[in-house]
Amino acid sequence: MRAVVFREPGSPIEYTDVELAEPKAGEVRVRIAAAGVCHSDLHVMRGEWDAASPMVMGHEGSGVVVALGEGVTTLAVGDHVVLSWVPPCGECRYCRSGHEARCQKVATLVAPQGVLFDGTSRLSKDGETLHHYLGVSSFAEEVVVPASGAVKVRDDAPLDIIAVVGCAVATGVGAVLNTAAVEPGSTVAVIGCGGVGLNVVQGARLAGAERIIAIDVVADKTLMALQFGATDRIDATQGDAVDQLRALLPDGVDYAFDAIGRTTTTEQAIRMLGLGGAAVIVGLPPTGAKASFEPLVLAEADQRILGSNYGSVRPSIDVPALVDRYMDGQLKLDPLISGRRPLSEAQEAFDDLEAGTVLRTLLIP
Amino acid sequence: MRAVVFREPGSPIEYTDVELAEPKAGEVRVRIAAAGVCHSDLHVMRGEWDAASPMVMGHEGSGVVVALGEGVTTLAVGDHVVLSWVPPCGECRYCRSGHEARCQKVATLVAPQGVLFDGTSRLSKDGETLHHYLGVSSFAEEVVVPASGAVKVRDDAPLDIIAVVGCAVATGVGAVLNTAAVEPGSTVAVIGCGGVGLNVVQGARLAGAERIIAIDVVADKTLMALQFGATDRIDATQGDAVDQLRALLPDGVDYAFDAIGRTTTTEQAIRMLGLGGAAVIVGLPPTGAKASFEPLVLAEADQRILGSNYGSVRPSIDVPALVDRYMDGQLKLDPLISGRRPLSEAQEAFDDLEAGTVLRTLLIP
Repeated sequence: MRAVVFREPGSPIEYTDVELAEPKAGEVRVRIAAAGVCHSDLHVMRGEWDAASPMVMGHEGSGVVVALGEGVTTLAVGDHVVLSWVPPCGECRYCRSGHEARCQKVATLVAPQGVLFDGTSRLSKDGETLHHYLGVSSFAEEVVVPASGAVKVRDDAPLDIIAVVGCAVATGVGAVLNTAAVEPGSTVAVIGCGGVGLNVVQGARLAGAERIIAIDVVADKTLMALQFGATDRIDATQGDAVDQLRALLPDGVDYAFDAIGRTTTTEQAIRMLGLGGAAVIVGLPPTGAKASFEPLVLAEADQRILGSNYGSVRPSIDVPALVDRYMDGQLKLDPLISGRRPLSEAQEAFDDLEAGTVLRTLLIP
Repeated sequence: MRAVVFREPGSPIEYTDVELAEPKAGEVRVRIAAAGVCHSDLHVMRGEWDAASPMVMGHEGSGVVVALGEGVTTLAVGDHVVLSWVPPCGECRYCRSGHEARCQKVATLVAPQGVLFDGTSRLSKDGETLHHYLGVSSFAEEVVVPASGAVKVRDDAPLDIIAVVGCAVATGVGAVLNTAAVEPGSTVAVIGCGGVGLNVVQGARLAGAERIIAIDVVADKTLMALQFGATDRIDATQGDAVDQLRALLPDGVDYAFDAIGRTTTTEQAIRMLGLGGAAVIVGLPPTGAKASFEPLVLAEADQRILGSNYGSVRPSIDVPALVDRYMDGQLKLDPLISGRRPLSEAQEAFDDLEAGTVLRTLLIP
């Protein structure tokens, strides 16, 4: 089958033929309908994040189950699924405590080593093993994933839209509803109104936030944030974002989400907090980058800094619920999708992402 | 009456005569039975923290109600009380959400300005206004405090022991039970085994933690921590505390409490965390000190940094419950009290605290 392979930072990605082995016990094979191009893949291409390579890229996607490995009873051939880049093992103490996004086996084996649960890969090229990216590798015609990484959703939801639920939406909305558990009536600042940030904005709207302040350096993005539920806009090119926020809300906010992930934006989020406020780190900075805070202020004001991995979601519960919310009209997905390209144009899709001209491009095999 | 007055960093504290006005509406007068000498007072004396001065020192204590201001119905003359340095206003959005330790009126008026709720002081000396310290000023024969700052407790509890519940115990145990909400079976590291740290240790024991690792540079303190429920000890003089902890628990801990409050200990606490772990800042560093963390690690591992102000307690609920736990034998208080001195020896008590030779001295007027 055709797939997009990444070898190392600096060398061009390859649209090429790869071999996909049959699913082993507990795994399923899925024919990809659409795969989203995300900043995380870009971080890896730039060498800012470590990833086992060579590998087949992509960690967001949707598709249809075409084969079941031994013992899989939770899915059937023909099921429509959204892929989850955390396939919970269901057995570790975190999964059993309802914290599936922290799954220990994913965090220590699947994600860092680029393999499935048995420690091996189903991907290869001319005898050379290729790694899975985050247990998914959706820039391909088909994938083999753990059954828990293919989340069954309703058949009437359009696969070439709901693909984005698997990463951008789960991460953004989940950070609000799960990680932070924003209460109705809260005040919320969102730094960065890209694909994830807009989902933070709509998550805050779903949570019943009273004020949602959208912050970006690109006016078009904060304008789009208004469509997603923002009540106020801050143009971060017009002076310090913290000062501008405090001009709107002198006491600071209850929640500040950093959906960018630079040291400066993380520190801004912390400095935007009012009494008892929580800064939530959603956007991810390069490995080794450090942000600082004043412990005295954090303690005296009873504040929190919350890391949010994959929106703290429980995929099998949250992904179908998000799809339902889309179908009910509560959740906007269509404006998040800037366009669709054939899988062969993955590089062009990354170029667009790097240029900042698109939110989410879907690759269609 | 006699009281201990602080004027400015560097100048000696004064044991002197001051005037105490009658309680106004909503306030009560309390005759002090015992007042604890805490590191916070020492921080102020050293000029490390800002405080409105001149002021009567002390923010921990117990006593008996001797007079009621207009409209006070929740207390009666003769009631035994423990003083709380957060007297919740009961009206702000934080109090009404169950977050009394974040009370907005305390955080913005009472604490920083050294006054009671009407913006004025009941303390003076020869016509000069003296400020209240954290709404308490317990280094005196009597205090006038808001009624919510004098928490009624059972009459059979010894006042010259339970005084420490008002700060050290509420702060330490509250950080575990309220701020962090440590679950049974958790692993917990406690950096610093002084008055607050030992209460974190016993809070973790009450919460049902499976492993409680006590860390200090003083072996006597970690030995005492064993009495309070610690299961393991780390001598921080014998190499990096984080390395030593990871030798015991390679995956890190679920909760790491910084009960010291230096930049280095805060950063150590963060680096001790495992998947989904929370670092809790209990000890307070000087104003302006900064600690740093790696946002990528915090986000990917779904970790949290939690500021804990006054153990996130609701004084009227938690203080009597802590006193009950002491009377039931679940909570150790006696070993926390190193000795008692007359109020006139406040300076000597501070000298002992600075020398690190005592946990808590109670001043008896």
